[in-house]
Amino acid sequence: MNTEDYTNPVQMSEVTVVDTFWSNYRELVRTKMIPYQWEALNDRIPDAEPSHCIRNFRIAAGLEDGDFYGFEFQDTDAAKWIEAAAFSLVWHPDKVLEQTIDDVIDLIVSAQQEDGYLDTYYIITGLEKRWTEVINTHELYCAGHMLEAATAYYHAAGKRKLLDAMIRFVDCIDREFGPEPGKQHGYPGHEILEMALIKLYEITKDEKHLALASYFINQRGQSPLFLEEEVRENHLTFKWKDSSFQYQYYQAGLPVREQDKAEGHAVRAVYLYSGMADVARVTGDDTLYQACRTLWNNMVHKRMYITGGIGSSSYGESFTYDYDLPSDTVYAETCASIGLVFFAQRMLMIAPIGEYGDVMEKALYNGIISGMSLDGTRFFYVNPLEVVPEACKKDQLRSHVKPERQKWFGCACCPPNLARMITSLSGYIYTQKKDALYVHLYIGSETVTALSGVETAICMRTDYPWDEDVTIEVTPAHTVHATLACRIPGWCISYTISKNGQVLIPGEMTPKDGYTYIAGLWSPGDTLSLHFDMPVTVVSSNPLVRENIGKAAVMRGPVVYCLEEEDNGRNLHCIRLPITSKFTHAPAKDLPGGAAALHSTGLILDTQGWEANTLYAPCRQDKYLEKELTWIPYYTWANRSCGEMAVWVRTAESNEEVYRG
Amino acid sequence: MNTEDYTNPVQMSEVTVVDTFWSNYRELVRTKMIPYQWEALNDRIPDAEPSHCIRNFRIAAGLEDGDFYGFEFQDTDAAKWIEAAAFSLVWHPDKVLEQTIDDVIDLIVSAQQEDGYLDTYYIITGLEKRWTEVINTHELYCAGHMLEAATAYYHAAGKRKLLDAMIRFVDCIDREFGPEPGKQHGYPGHEILEMALIKLYEITKDEKHLALASYFINQRGQSPLFLEEEVRENHLTFKWKDSSFQYQYYQAGLPVREQDKAEGHAVRAVYLYSGMADVARVTGDDTLYQACRTLWNNMVHKRMYITGGIGSSSYGESFTYDYDLPSDTVYAETCASIGLVFFAQRMLMIAPIGEYGDVMEKALYNGIISGMSLDGTRFFYVNPLEVVPEACKKDQLRSHVKPERQKWFGCACCPPNLARMITSLSGYIYTQKKDALYVHLYIGSETVTALSGVETAICMRTDYPWDEDVTIEVTPAHTVHATLACRIPGWCISYTISKNGQVLIPGEMTPKDGYTYIAGLWSPGDTLSLHFDMPVTVVSSNPLVRENIGKAAVMRGPVVYCLEEEDNGRNLHCIRLPITSKFTHAPAKDLPGGAAALHSTGLILDTQGWEANTLYAPCRQDKYLEKELTWIPYYTWANRSCGEMAVWVRTAESNEEVYRG
Repeated sequence: MNTEDYTNPVQMSEVTVVDTFWSNYRELVRTKMIPYQWEALNDRIPDAEPSHCIRNFRIAAGLEDGDFYGFEFQDTDAAKWIEAAAFSLVWHPDKVLEQTIDDVIDLIVSAQQEDGYLDTYYIITGLEKRWTEVINTHELYCAGHMLEAATAYYHAAGKRKLLDAMIRFVDCIDREFGPEPGKQHGYPGHEILEMALIKLYEITKDEKHLALASYFINQRGQSPLFLEEEVRENHLTFKWKDSSFQYQYYQAGLPVREQDKAEGHAVRAVYLYSGMADVARVTGDDTLYQACRTLWNNMVHKRMYITGGIGSSSYGESFTYDYDLPSDTVYAETCASIGLVFFAQRMLMIAPIGEYGDVMEKALYNGIISGMSLDGTRFFYVNPLEVVPEACKKDQLRSHVKPERQKWFGCACCPPNLARMITSLSGYIYTQKKDALYVHLYIGSETVTALSGVETAICMRTDYPWDEDVTIEVTPAHTVHATLACRIPGWCISYTISKNGQVLIPGEMTPKDGYTYIAGLWSPGDTLSLHFDMPVTVVSSNPLVRENIGKAAVMRGPVVYCLEEEDNGRNLHCIRLPITSKFTHAPAKDLPGGAAALHSTGLILDTQGWEANTLYAPCRQDKYLEKELTWIPYYTWANRSCGEMAVWVRTAESNEEVYRG
Repeated sequence: MNTEDYTNPVQMSEVTVVDTFWSNYRELVRTKMIPYQWEALNDRIPDAEPSHCIRNFRIAAGLEDGDFYGFEFQDTDAAKWIEAAAFSLVWHPDKVLEQTIDDVIDLIVSAQQEDGYLDTYYIITGLEKRWTEVINTHELYCAGHMLEAATAYYHAAGKRKLLDAMIRFVDCIDREFGPEPGKQHGYPGHEILEMALIKLYEITKDEKHLALASYFINQRGQSPLFLEEEVRENHLTFKWKDSSFQYQYYQAGLPVREQDKAEGHAVRAVYLYSGMADVARVTGDDTLYQACRTLWNNMVHKRMYITGGIGSSSYGESFTYDYDLPSDTVYAETCASIGLVFFAQRMLMIAPIGEYGDVMEKALYNGIISGMSLDGTRFFYVNPLEVVPEACKKDQLRSHVKPERQKWFGCACCPPNLARMITSLSGYIYTQKKDALYVHLYIGSETVTALSGVETAICMRTDYPWDEDVTIEVTPAHTVHATLACRIPGWCISYTISKNGQVLIPGEMTPKDGYTYIAGLWSPGDTLSLHFDMPVTVVSSNPLVRENIGKAAVMRGPVVYCLEEEDNGRNLHCIRLPITSKFTHAPAKDLPGGAAALHSTGLILDTQGWEANTLYAPCRQDKYLEKELTWIPYYTWANRSCGEMAVWVRTAESNEEVYRG
């Protein structure tokens, strides 16, 4: 790793999003999800499973009598809510909301113990049991989420109350865990605290915070295995004793630098990798960065759905093995794709490599927002690439796959994770270093930043991902020598970049690792126009992906498309797509938000001659009929009706197989 | 139903099997499995999970101290062993084995309670709990298996001790269950007792035995649901409360005449349907027969694998929904296919319809014997149609699928079921009525039976399923007018039948419902020669079977073939079979037992140009290389090495897609 490549995000507080595509989502989160979730945390949603989250804090604070209720990680619902709400304050100040946050922070802090400990599950059920079941009870995971909330609110509102409380909790954790004799040589069962500690360190610059994050990373998977010893000594249940991954469920079966495959619970994995990248960057540890590279490559090149989904099995919400990417029994949790964005962003900060940005974009426009209905009221935990509603009902192996988004979840991890992702999106668009600004995502936005020491306003305008054009107006206080580095999306075969209307030629821009560097003098009002050709592309999988052999998916720009029963009838598996098909695109009339639909000609099997009562018969030359196909963006599926859906469609070499009467 | 169509099996004691294909299996069972299982029952197999079955009986009889060990249905291991051993005595008398059976029967009967009750689980763990958890604890299932053993040994050796004991147990059951006030209005949680009671009734002609079988059938699924009430009143665990099938797991959610789909646990289902067919036949109940027809049609036309496997889901070892026949996550338990043969035989006794015999043949030559290694020492519980060993290890959804047969099972249901199926095979070949003999299976055999009152010797010779020819020599004591009805296999498109060398023409034989009836005078030595053309057939599935769309399987005669990695390399999913391929067949050199292998030309995807690190790329015209393919009979898979296997292979319309250069 080359620390000269390091960049820092342009802080979200400095970036205003003005984007057709994302503004809608941000407003949905701000106006619907955040208020709805607040009601949910307070058990005020009729007909919904109670959350009890706020009550747990009240009971822990001694303000109310009662028992703990919910998952051991119920506290994180409050944490994620505070974090999302804090992010929203950055771009939409709201005194009432801020007061609500202050109030809930007062409540949370009032539950804190004298020694800094703060986890309602153990405060209510018995503090003597704390730190005895780190493997299962999410104590350090709760701490991590609350610390993320604390840093977010500190950045958003400049208020330290929760931050200071969490610093005390971190001190408490630091007294319990570490290399010193007498401390537990342990680490979180569910990762996140690692990256939260780096967020804290970047505020406090307290080496103790960095050291604890580093310890958690470096101790993980060291022999003897802490989690295994904890299970043995404390007579705990080890849930994965019959699994193939064993302690790798927790990414804790091997030291992190010896892990070369993305394994175990997918959300845990990408949260760990994010923390590893953070520690690698902050400490300049190249071996750790190389470990991140290895894991990234395995995950992205062999274990990632075309939608940016990861974790192909419902068993343990986990990775399985290379090229195992079933479309129908899939897991691809919304949270896992969000974690993948966290990891990608951190890798980008270390080295501006286009693939990191490509994956971030892929996940954002596909497998993340598919987790949310277009009206922001219903959510997917699991993001399948093929659905047959009857199978979800009658085949237990697919019962985790829902053909319709659900209102809310008892284990409410995905919706609030979506909320904090979307409210903080402005922090993912740009990174910078002294004399260069990197554009990673093409999201309409405005920012002011220092370029080579000169305050410079940046104004990006685009109708991405539907439109092929992006303009970036650069307005430094005065002419400055600097570099603009723009990601050339991996899906893009052909593009042009103009500066002030003049097409740049190779000497005027330098491609490197998926970015084009445009170095030179920038004067107020200079405008860069990027044009990315967005033909519809028919994409196939590596043939080692068994599930997709003989099939293709359809993309335009970063957007993956799918077929739905609503447009194309039942039995989508009987459809074939000639790989030479021509596509047209037009706004989808019945989908809000300006999504473009695609239209093409396809083939559908002529099932005449097959009777319902014939199960097997001698093979004949199949006959196909021409059929108009309508494709909608994958993320918009299941917004109109409950029916079949398919991303991967069988191909035909040509239209020759059409039966014409 | 027309009782004039009824036929009765030619008793197995009257039929001597002289068959290349099956004699091998029979000898394996007699010389290896029966002795091995006896050792297993007595816990004398080193390194194997103890069975404890005999010890349970010793403890129940007061001969030994100790606790009950094993499944609640552990008694059935002894029952199935006695039954298989009894069947073997019929065709291979063995005084030592007979003495062993007598001894174990003495032991079993010595455990019987004064009131006739005989189930070691409750005798040992507390008789006060008996009949309180019929849904889960297999009490009536154990009774059914032991009753089957008793009737088998009675027929084999003429000894009544176990039979009489079981009659006393049936009396005990009859005092507990029935329509009368004060009795439980219940029925077995796991069916089998129904058909066992009919076997008993056919010996005793005691109407009470028929009435109890009928009651169990007719009461099943009546409102209020007995099993549901039992769960509620006795505070039992209902294991399937989260399932889609609910009490249909036990085929007990609806009265049997209202059930129109094969649902729930597949073994239970076909055991019930067998009992239903028995009761329908014996009582002449047409509504019950029609219910059997409906269930048969649903199962065979919409829910049966091409191998005769049934029950497509590991969850509940159950049926799922129409046309859901996944090859890789499949269950297709060996026992379920055996139960399918039981059902088919009983349907044949009611009406000689070729499809019943076809399914019996399909299951026997494919999905049943696939459950057993060619050397008779290892067994499959689950019979997949596609296997990737890595998936079985690393994907929990396929962890029930084993790429290699296992030595023995803790739940040892399949191996002893195989043993009793194979040792009793001679009873499935023929059925008869007064003036007609039906030939259902083409298995080399000799029998003497009465045809139109005249003692007639029948001698069938064939090398089926490898050879296309079958001869049947008919030797009545004197010339007699009678009918021979021979099943024309459903897979057979073209055949000829000759009598004494003279090809029969349409007027001389009458086809009906899949049988050809040859009526006329038969004189000693008359010989019928049947020639069934056995071209290799490429077969496709109904297009509603999603899993098999665009794929085909290969059959020759009744035998389903597959590709194995051993012959064809890895990545079988990259292979395509042009549907016009020519096949040759020759004995498989490395597979014992005379199995024929097939050879054809196929295509294999040229994966050049795909790098391991590229997961998705724009679709190109695929290139295929010619490849010689070797196909082996499905039932012989996993006998040489552990590797990939596939029955369903992607098709190509022709060889045109071959890349030549």
